[in-house]
Amino acid sequence: MSAGTVHGVGLGPGDPELMSVRADRLIRNAKNIAFFRKAGRAGRARKIVDGMLHGSAREIPMEYPVTTEIPLSDPRYNEILSQFYQTVTGQLRDIAEAGEDVVVLCEGDPFFYGSFMHLYTRLRDHVPVEVVPAITGMSAAWTATGSPITWGDDVMTVLMGTLPEAELVRGMLNADALVVMKVGRNLPRIRAALDKAGKLDRAYYVEYASMAEERAMPLAQADLDAAPYFSIVVVHGQGRRP
Amino acid sequence: MSAGTVHGVGLGPGDPELMSVRADRLIRNAKNIAFFRKAGRAGRARKIVDGMLHGSAREIPMEYPVTTEIPLSDPRYNEILSQFYQTVTGQLRDIAEAGEDVVVLCEGDPFFYGSFMHLYTRLRDHVPVEVVPAITGMSAAWTATGSPITWGDDVMTVLMGTLPEAELVRGMLNADALVVMKVGRNLPRIRAALDKAGKLDRAYYVEYASMAEERAMPLAQADLDAAPYFSIVVVHGQGRRP
Repeated sequence: MSAGTVHGVGLGPGDPELMSVRADRLIRNAKNIAFFRKAGRAGRARKIVDGMLHGSAREIPMEYPVTTEIPLSDPRYNEILSQFYQTVTGQLRDIAEAGEDVVVLCEGDPFFYGSFMHLYTRLRDHVPVEVVPAITGMSAAWTATGSPITWGDDVMTVLMGTLPEAELVRGMLNADALVVMKVGRNLPRIRAALDKAGKLDRAYYVEYASMAEERAMPLAQADLDAAPYFSIVVVHGQGRRP
Repeated sequence: MSAGTVHGVGLGPGDPELMSVRADRLIRNAKNIAFFRKAGRAGRARKIVDGMLHGSAREIPMEYPVTTEIPLSDPRYNEILSQFYQTVTGQLRDIAEAGEDVVVLCEGDPFFYGSFMHLYTRLRDHVPVEVVPAITGMSAAWTATGSPITWGDDVMTVLMGTLPEAELVRGMLNADALVVMKVGRNLPRIRAALDKAGKLDRAYYVEYASMAEERAMPLAQADLDAAPYFSIVVVHGQGRRP
């Protein structure tokens, strides 16, 4: 018997119509569907595919043992997560080794700051794994601002809002166009860094890009100390334009 | 009579299955389809949608008056292109003002280093314009390498291969993960910059990502002085991974 394939399928930014044709087809035909979620929640990835699953599809929730309860700097964080990835990888391997395909739902693009990569590196030497790229959350965010993010030879940099302020400022100074992800509770530090880099007045704030609750506005008008998980800050490039 | 809408529809990296469900639907139902091409060529965007167009769809090729015949630094380049964008924008406006929708095919993601933005800025104050984001060529490229591009808090920077070597080196030194686009004839300079930044041994070369001709390999093994238009260099981030 030949092994089944684990498909890491990018769902894109959240609007089901922004899924790729391939993702749409794989999800609608899947017999086994795995997805991450926080214990006790429906799971954001699972919600995106509501109404798309086959009647007899087997659902395999992969529940994070911790999310924000333990700080990233605590060595236990890595240990606990590593053990979790090992366990769920075992489940997915069992399905594939029994000859069945399994679709793993991935928010955004699987290889771009995704969680799937932690499964991928543990699976790829054992069973066939295929990855379907997807529209990133940042593409939906700059589209929501109504202005192109990059022109001509603009340098674009993507920064995580979790970085220390000095690193944020350095990254902001070295780029023409900017994307800051993982905004959430880091918004005050991101705002301060943009101010120091002289880019606060050009920054846009976007939340829930491509979803029903989408909002986009100049960051100066976003009177918030904390932003939802699904929020992104962008600064548009100003490069050459005929 | 109400005006029609100009839809700037991202096609993604080239594989028609990587188009979004929305793009697929808009293209299959379109009565008017516009696309850029070099005079005398079929056009890459038009090729991607081969076999998808409605039998009675009207095709509107928009032929570049120049591509590489005049250097970017020549002031005539901007003048000629500006005049061209003005002319084709007029055509699209006429269709929309006559009450019909028109789909403009855009390779990659329309707001990410695309040509559509030059039409967009000239149209948006006159007729309704909607933009459909898409999977970027770089997402397909890092997926083709078989390794995630970013982990944890990695800083990712996108550079155009057309930049001077010193600017390439600076951008490369300031990032954990790198994408270099517009590789083509700039490959020797990109290679030299990666070497100076100490990242040549980790660089990957990808051409025709997601297409039938896709090839991905360590850049050190790519024995080329010039690369095809559809080629990208990536350096993967090495960030935190539980």
